[in-house]
Amino acid sequence: MRGLIIGRYQPFHKGHLEVVKCVLKEVDDLIIGIGSAQISHTLENPFTAGERITMISEALKEEGLKCHYIIPIPDIWNNSLWVKHVIALTPSFNVVYTGNPLARRLFMEEGVEVREVPMFDRRKYSGTEIRRRMIMGEDWESLVPPAVARVIKQIKGVERLRDITRSDELTHLRRGDISP
Amino acid sequence: MRGLIIGRYQPFHKGHLEVVKCVLKEVDDLIIGIGSAQISHTLENPFTAGERITMISEALKEEGLKCHYIIPIPDIWNNSLWVKHVIALTPSFNVVYTGNPLARRLFMEEGVEVREVPMFDRRKYSGTEIRRRMIMGEDWESLVPPAVARVIKQIKGVERLRDITRSDELTHLRRGDISP
Amino acid sequence: MRGLIIGRYQPFHKGHLEVVKCVLKEVDDLIIGIGSAQISHTLENPFTAGERITMISEALKEEGLKCHYIIPIPDIWNNSLWVKHVIALTPSFNVVYTGNPLARRLFMEEGVEVREVPMFDRRKYSGTEIRRRMIMGEDWESLVPPAVARVIKQIKGVERLRDITRSDELTHLRRGDISP
Amino acid sequence: MRGLIIGRYQPFHKGHLEVVKCVLKEVDDLIIGIGSAQISHTLENPFTAGERITMISEALKEEGLKCHYIIPIPDIWNNSLWVKHVIALTPSFNVVYTGNPLARRLFMEEGVEVREVPMFDRRKYSGTEIRRRMIMGEDWESLVPPAVARVIKQIKGVERLRDITRSDELTHLRRGDISP
Amino acid sequence: MRGLIIGRYQPFHKGHLEVVKCVLKEVDDLIIGIGSAQISHTLENPFTAGERITMISEALKEEGLKCHYIIPIPDIWNNSLWVKHVIALTPSFNVVYTGNPLARRLFMEEGVEVREVPMFDRRKYSGTEIRRRMIMGEDWESLVPPAVARVIKQIKGVERLRDITRSDELTHLRRGDISP
Amino acid sequence: MRGLIIGRYQPFHKGHLEVVKCVLKEVDDLIIGIGSAQISHTLENPFTAGERITMISEALKEEGLKCHYIIPIPDIWNNSLWVKHVIALTPSFNVVYTGNPLARRLFMEEGVEVREVPMFDRRKYSGTEIRRRMIMGEDWESLVPPAVARVIKQIKGVERLRDITRSDELTHLRRGDISP
Repeated sequence: MRGLIIGRYQPFHKGHLEVVKCVLKEVDDLIIGIGSAQISHTLENPFTAGERITMISEALKEEGLKCHYIIPIPDIWNNSLWVKHVIALTPSFNVVYTGNPLARRLFMEEGVEVREVPMFDRRKYSGTEIRRRMIMGEDWESLVPPAVARVIKQIKGVERLRDITRSDELTHLRRGDISP
Repeated sequence: MRGLIIGRYQPFHKGHLEVVKCVLKEVDDLIIGIGSAQISHTLENPFTAGERITMISEALKEEGLKCHYIIPIPDIWNNSLWVKHVIALTPSFNVVYTGNPLARRLFMEEGVEVREVPMFDRRKYSGTEIRRRMIMGEDWESLVPPAVARVIKQIKGVERLRDITRSDELTHLRRGDISP
Repeated sequence: MRGLIIGRYQPFHKGHLEVVKCVLKEVDDLIIGIGSAQISHTLENPFTAGERITMISEALKEEGLKCHYIIPIPDIWNNSLWVKHVIALTPSFNVVYTGNPLARRLFMEEGVEVREVPMFDRRKYSGTEIRRRMIMGEDWESLVPPAVARVIKQIKGVERLRDITRSDELTHLRRGDISP
Repeated sequence: MRGLIIGRYQPFHKGHLEVVKCVLKEVDDLIIGIGSAQISHTLENPFTAGERITMISEALKEEGLKCHYIIPIPDIWNNSLWVKHVIALTPSFNVVYTGNPLARRLFMEEGVEVREVPMFDRRKYSGTEIRRRMIMGEDWESLVPPAVARVIKQIKGVERLRDITRSDELTHLRRGDISP
Repeated sequence: MRGLIIGRYQPFHKGHLEVVKCVLKEVDDLIIGIGSAQISHTLENPFTAGERITMISEALKEEGLKCHYIIPIPDIWNNSLWVKHVIALTPSFNVVYTGNPLARRLFMEEGVEVREVPMFDRRKYSGTEIRRRMIMGEDWESLVPPAVARVIKQIKGVERLRDITRSDELTHLRRGDISP
Repeated sequence: MRGLIIGRYQPFHKGHLEVVKCVLKEVDDLIIGIGSAQISHTLENPFTAGERITMISEALKEEGLKCHYIIPIPDIWNNSLWVKHVIALTPSFNVVYTGNPLARRLFMEEGVEVREVPMFDRRKYSGTEIRRRMIMGEDWESLVPPAVARVIKQIKGVERLRDITRSDELTHLRRGDISP
């Protein structure tokens, strides 16, 4: 049996890793879909799809887990086509794991089996919280697998995120002057 | 003489129906353009273009009104092209009815005659208010034509809207984890 | 040596003009890139690319400045491709002038030299402030070069901006009814 | 029962009309989808979606036929999403009528019932043949319903097609000089 | 050292497999990029990205080869951005293997090291030839790894390709009638 | 009075230069629009918009001509919107110069005055012919202004075009293997 989980993984954290471990007890094969794959260098999506694939791949290797498929899923801005879009980009799967009610509904409307994913201390293990800590100079490394911390340092991810943040503050200050 | 009115109709409500009735006193033929046609399954745009066409068509039939043309208008994210985009998708028309100042300006800049639409208790007969009531479990059915209520029940529209809402709350809670 | 500066210029104001003058002391040739070129008729972007080109061109002529290249840069919604997109649309340049940290980072990640632009009373000489004054009926003309004020009057830019504003207020009142 | 037929209708001709009449014997409601809706002013697609809607609507009225839904379907350049795209833009339907093997396969892969459409002297009643005759100055009017001929004359459709043709010949002569 | 090879793999054949084997002698890690990922159900691109990922993955497994990354690359219709687009979607790589002069030039213009791929009986081991044989009912299975033949049979790929072909012939016969 | 001429300028040749000189006798200001601005590195469109702007700008300077505006016009794949798209990207103009019947018709349908451009030995002074000569190693430099020849050499344009050509031949040989 093959399962699919989809997230944006900005970045891939320990909560994500626990979900993967749980799901791997139920399925033989796992597809990890990387949502909003075309977006990077924004406050909510600082990392490119390639960087996120590297993070996930390194983190799984570090844990001794194998993962058959890690697949970038670009947005299509059309919810009614989204499930078909995911299906076209991935090997066939039997079940989707998601905790997101809209994703669950969209898959269910297409007749795909959906299972609830277990959540692990959501307020702490969250991309938003980790990015907030990166910007504020607080400890974020304890929330991600060691391999992910290494990748982020190598690509100077924290510096990038802070530049994006400063840019955004500036935008609020004098919106209308400089793009992007 | 042929007239055009454009709305998003999320959903088509009694205020919209009254506008249609008023306009039909002034024109022989009516085109109803469905804006943001490509969007669905969002808080502001829960219904697909096909579902909205069904709602409008059933509501007009129920009232004994005929409507020559109900036409989906996808967004183009470029206001300076929008009027030409509408013109290319619709039979030729003589006059546009709209209460929206931007739409009025865009049509006027293209030399199209624009008339004000009468409004009917705007705070009550509004898509936002109806969607709010659907989410909160309050009475919304009295604000839409009976045929529209039937269509929404048939497609389980209220359940869909609530799933979208829950998804959105979750996003605010832990934005950054699951797409879409 | 050829330099590049990019802004949205909604509208081109005296702060922009001072930046151009400063940069022209350091470079032989200047490219002015107009960001978000495809957007117009919105609160943040009321003017078309063509109108902005006219404003800049007239303002430079008025000051006796020559400007070799004024080039519209449409958005591409993909920050990782943005610098290459700019490069493909412009003559080759040696240095970029920008005060925006994200733009600086994106150009630096591509190996382009970036220099800080001097800022001139940012709170006053800002597109946002000028648009606010236009809407409120306050003095905005003293913030832009005379040639820009003339262009804006000729295209009835203030009236357009007010219609857009009224449209937006209406949207907040009864969002869900009329597109665009 | 509701049926769907899709064509490009460049222009709507007597062969199309016969298909509509046949299908109307089997279904209560009919949706006519207009494919490649965003294309116009080309050799293969001279008419806009709005003009094609007018042609079809007038031709059906002339024959005393009612047609509930005439809906423009823009292309999406992604065959694996195309059926969902059609479904999202149209009221729900029970059966699709098509003589096109790819369309049949795409609908079948989505589990939609497909029925063969009867064909009426395909070499004569064909959009390609009609457009060829328009360009060559031969009789084309006998191949379309009278209402369609009237619409085409009113919009100077033959002149437009000839200008497009001349443009295309020129392109072959000195391709590389003038766009579009 | 990590290498990248890109192809459309319609389908993945023994020539591709030999290239992979050769490259794996030179690099530690390999990224296989799947070009034109968003296209399927056409004569030149019958298979979806998901189906192609499955073919490649099964074929490598069958040979006892591991492959770290198989990544779909959608087209962007802009050659000057293409290399950056590939880089954003993939883990960082040191060298690209390609026999395609345009791809080589585009990577070289971005300063990426490019190595020639060895070719294996190009006229026989070619996607075009294999698709031709599928359509004509000739032997195609000997040209692809056994695992690929199994995947193609499972998804009824030959039947799909023939339907597409028939559709295309029909289009040539009476182009202008039925979309897609 | 301000005039507009549009071409793809792949590359800008002596025929184009003669047209510019003729038009400059009739208008005070000239806008040169660069069509298909987003395309480059193809057989028909080898040069980027930025490279073409450089060619035109240098060639005009060399002739002692001033040109107020050189503006890239990306394609929009929708002929019915094309004229509005051009208008939104350019300063206002009074007259369009074009020898292309489709462009003439599209502008005329929008009520824009169109004048015929004089042609100068079309078979010789043509982008297609110049690109053919570049590929074949024949004399092409005599067909373009000296400044354009310099720009093309500087960017190694002939080598690029030959790589694209070889890539294309390869595609015909074994289409289906390597993208782009």
